[in-house]
Amino acid sequence: MDPIQTLVQELCKLPGIGEKTATRLAFHILYASTDEALALAKAIQEVKERIRPCSVCFNLSSIDPCPICADMRRDQDLICVVEDSIGLNAVERAGVFRGVYHVLSGVIAPLEGIGPDQLKVKELVERVQMKPPREVILSTNPTVEGEATSAFLSKILKPHVPKITRIARGVPSGSDLEYVDRMTLSKAFENRRDF
Amino acid sequence: MDPIQTLVQELCKLPGIGEKTATRLAFHILYASTDEALALAKAIQEVKERIRPCSVCFNLSSIDPCPICADMRRDQDLICVVEDSIGLNAVERAGVFRGVYHVLSGVIAPLEGIGPDQLKVKELVERVQMKPPREVILSTNPTVEGEATSAFLSKILKPHVPKITRIARGVPSGSDLEYVDRMTLSKAFENRRDF
Repeated sequence: MDPIQTLVQELCKLPGIGEKTATRLAFHILYASTDEALALAKAIQEVKERIRPCSVCFNLSSIDPCPICADMRRDQDLICVVEDSIGLNAVERAGVFRGVYHVLSGVIAPLEGIGPDQLKVKELVERVQMKPPREVILSTNPTVEGEATSAFLSKILKPHVPKITRIARGVPSGSDLEYVDRMTLSKAFENRRDF
Repeated sequence: MDPIQTLVQELCKLPGIGEKTATRLAFHILYASTDEALALAKAIQEVKERIRPCSVCFNLSSIDPCPICADMRRDQDLICVVEDSIGLNAVERAGVFRGVYHVLSGVIAPLEGIGPDQLKVKELVERVQMKPPREVILSTNPTVEGEATSAFLSKILKPHVPKITRIARGVPSGSDLEYVDRMTLSKAFENRRDF
């Protein structure tokens, strides 16, 4: 097949990239300098070759244990459970958490055949049994699957961890009540705090 | 630097891809199978290795002359001048043109230091001198630079080509007059046709 068509097809497999965008990106790569284009190709190869899950928390990293697990200035006694490295990254960007993580590598989704055995649940239980943390903060996404996964985890972690919490649900900062969905507003009222 | 950060940075260089989208794409590549990720890396390398400008029309292609110039069922006597292979592709997708092309590889943009010498203008003049076509259709983009480039080309091609045309400007199909800009509407009135 034509190399340009092949490139367009491969770019189309990326999330949120349709055929028109893929064509635009392909021509950008075509018209870019060879150095720039090959730097992108090399960066893709590098992540596949060098990035592995951390043996402690399963965060994707080029070193093992990952820089977060290896950082002794972080509170190793406080574990934040996230679905994936994308969620971990979002929490890190916010800069509000100085503990360590456990990356589940997905959520329980029975319809897609994903149960606890497909996730790093056993590894989490073993980890907290071996060295019980002060607190586990369940930070899966506020979706149906994320909530169900957190509920499941809170149950099986209970015997081993003194304090298990779930990140708060409520109205997002900077939003307008008019555009907030019913579920979010209902949670915001339920979780209201004294002023 | 961390391979994930490097990949995010490289993806950020693509048009229309900000840091958030780049991060999402990077993690998609991280979580994709190695085969899928390497197929994308290989596709990028392949276009840079195998794609060259056609020696006749300067369309980017893996063979020379390009499949369009080599296709004897196409009207070799009718040349459509486009800015780049992106424009060529758009005309091809529309399927309304059965002649051949000449890819300028840009537009005249004095502010960016791009004059006729930086474009395939000399090559176009030589081409029409060697084998004068029946008609040249100027299909640069309907932008200030595209219009100026077409005006310039029409002047220098005049002595060699019996008929030089410019694609029509008017209201786009499926649009709503309410949302059409003044310039387009003015051209639509100027170029109105008998019913």
